[in-house]
Amino acid sequence: MLRARSVGGFAQVDPASTPGYDGDKKTGAAELAAVGEKLSTLQEMLFAEARSGGDRSVLLVLQGMDTAGKGGIVRHVGGLVDPQGLAVTGFGRPTRTEAAHDFLWRIRKALPAPGHIGVFDRSHYEDVLPVRVHSLVPESVWRPRFDDINAFEAELAASGTSIIKCALVVSKDEQKARLAERLKRPDKFWKYDPSDLTERAYWDEYLQAYQEIFDRTDTDAAPWHVIPADRKWFSRLAVAQILLETLESLDLSWPPANFDVDAEKARLAALDD
Amino acid sequence: MLRARSVGGFAQVDPASTPGYDGDKKTGAAELAAVGEKLSTLQEMLFAEARSGGDRSVLLVLQGMDTAGKGGIVRHVGGLVDPQGLAVTGFGRPTRTEAAHDFLWRIRKALPAPGHIGVFDRSHYEDVLPVRVHSLVPESVWRPRFDDINAFEAELAASGTSIIKCALVVSKDEQKARLAERLKRPDKFWKYDPSDLTERAYWDEYLQAYQEIFDRTDTDAAPWHVIPADRKWFSRLAVAQILLETLESLDLSWPPANFDVDAEKARLAALDD
Repeated sequence: MLRARSVGGFAQVDPASTPGYDGDKKTGAAELAAVGEKLSTLQEMLFAEARSGGDRSVLLVLQGMDTAGKGGIVRHVGGLVDPQGLAVTGFGRPTRTEAAHDFLWRIRKALPAPGHIGVFDRSHYEDVLPVRVHSLVPESVWRPRFDDINAFEAELAASGTSIIKCALVVSKDEQKARLAERLKRPDKFWKYDPSDLTERAYWDEYLQAYQEIFDRTDTDAAPWHVIPADRKWFSRLAVAQILLETLESLDLSWPPANFDVDAEKARLAALDD
Repeated sequence: MLRARSVGGFAQVDPASTPGYDGDKKTGAAELAAVGEKLSTLQEMLFAEARSGGDRSVLLVLQGMDTAGKGGIVRHVGGLVDPQGLAVTGFGRPTRTEAAHDFLWRIRKALPAPGHIGVFDRSHYEDVLPVRVHSLVPESVWRPRFDDINAFEAELAASGTSIIKCALVVSKDEQKARLAERLKRPDKFWKYDPSDLTERAYWDEYLQAYQEIFDRTDTDAAPWHVIPADRKWFSRLAVAQILLETLESLDLSWPPANFDVDAEKARLAALDD
């Protein structure tokens, strides 16, 4: 229901809405805990499957304007599962070494191993977002990247990685309020960057860039979801729910024993200490 | 109090004891949650410090016999903090590529970045444990590793990483019970490996190998703690407490703003949308 192609993109989404959920913050928290229980079991099954030779994994890509709550998703949704099976990577401005390679180089290095849930806090889509908005490279360079991305994601999906892409959409008013809070609380200063305000001036350009991302890269192998994010409790619940549905679609089960259970029981019973 | 040098090593420790804690399972769970609250804040401060240019990190090394509960520590202690600031690495049998390098090669690659808490589920100590017990390399190769390890850990500590090493000690009876449970429950089969029983036959050799590890590598820069682990709730609480004390010793605080707060407030207030 939050699929980008059905909601029509950022501009059509009310960031304060809670589509598909008629509860409130309190019931939402309880719902998140319930989703978390299921997620936790399925994540362990995925991990166990890989230990038995399976090659499946999940990749959750998070994008969104500054203050949209990507970090909160990592903490509150990622925190629902065993950290042993989670691989979180944040992608900031490319280092000199990263910039010297193809834009997918650093992404490939961070892909989740079999059995893991990878979470990307920003991703290869930065290379068609700020890079495009600020013309860091000419259009002749960034435009072909949509095809590169689709090919990359198709390859990834074919090799056993289920890809989920979530774009968090926050309203300008809510962003302003969150930036103001970061400037008021010393424990939030570290999250504030003067460039956030600069970026805000390019709001419409970002909307346009996101729209083209949805138009070009919302594929069945790697679908885009648009997540209203003015209410943090809802965006966390929505992403957790999508992650759960993805894991459920894998039809996971506990791997059968790759040893003779009765024989091992006998060995154990025969121990003299 | 759990410092290896003061308890005298594995052989002197009662795996069912709860040294320094006179509560029970129920109060222990509440205590763990309380420790978790504090841990979570300090971990965020450590993460924030690194964003502001700090180079400090923490490395928690977990060792212990099979079934001692290393995975449970990762889940229940690691799960107390934001996964964004956590880097968990499990070290199994070396791959062919890993085996072709020095034993510290794969370890160095997995060290926590500044601001992160790294957790090693097994570690470079495997190279003086099974490798020694099973004579996978001659003594002339493994014995010098104690010096290599001390030099490596001293270098690491000097570069800003606080190192905590925990050896979980489980009794033979409890191990037997945990192995039996893994053989009884299909959702636990994946955790069982027939080689676990084979390893058990080398119990005393492992004790001896651990003792030499404590004798040779329990340094002030990288102390060893011996954690009684027959009661899972206690071992989790003990490791969380040691982690908390380590973070407290760093005297962390929220980094000051690296921008002019009033000027940014004015910029924000001047926005026309």
